[in-house]
Amino acid sequence: MEKVNVKEKFDAISDYWNPRIVGELNGQHVKAVKIKGDFVWHLHENEDELFYVVKGVLTLEFRTKTVIVNEGEFMIVPRGVEHRPCANEEAHILLFEPASTLNTGNITNERTRSKLEKI
Amino acid sequence: MEKVNVKEKFDAISDYWNPRIVGELNGQHVKAVKIKGDFVWHLHENEDELFYVVKGVLTLEFRTKTVIVNEGEFMIVPRGVEHRPCANEEAHILLFEPASTLNTGNITNERTRSKLEKI
Repeated sequence: MEKVNVKEKFDAISDYWNPRIVGELNGQHVKAVKIKGDFVWHLHENEDELFYVVKGVLTLEFRTKTVIVNEGEFMIVPRGVEHRPCANEEAHILLFEPASTLNTGNITNERTRSKLEKI
Repeated sequence: MEKVNVKEKFDAISDYWNPRIVGELNGQHVKAVKIKGDFVWHLHENEDELFYVVKGVLTLEFRTKTVIVNEGEFMIVPRGVEHRPCANEEAHILLFEPASTLNTGNITNERTRSKLEKI
């Protein structure tokens, strides 16, 4: 039972779009991910997903609108809703979601990370 | 489906130890709470609880140790572990926990908040 320093976790990450598990509770994971560029359009059939912006700016594209999520803001994407996370510059994101959540949701491609590292 | 600005939520809170619901996902709540002073010793039988410090300093007392949780840090308190949150000065905390979680856990007293406001 130890506290977690979020900045230290991000300092330990050097690649993009590769979420690390930094906390576990109630069947949920807290994940830290550095992002830059455009991800893949996808949805999660059974999981709602929270994106909390620790640093930088996250652009969340939906089929009907685009939301700019700034540092100190979060957004919850309900299950079943297609979305594409993007970032013009490097951004640091905390994710809060069920342990079952796959990063690319209903899509499997070279960006899929099915086995996540705990840091 | 809207983003949430965390600072704006805290700006709307003027009392202490009265958590507000600011997000819901996967049967979990995201709550914002301003704290100052000492809370009551308690535990949650069935819920792990995450404390994320957005502003200020949180002191988490356990029966065996005390942990100082600073801004930008979080700590997960597993179910069944007795704890007492304290803060010498006003602190702003985000909680991530199951919707069933009662603020005073196994204790019921004048600080219990069984019906939380959504803001």
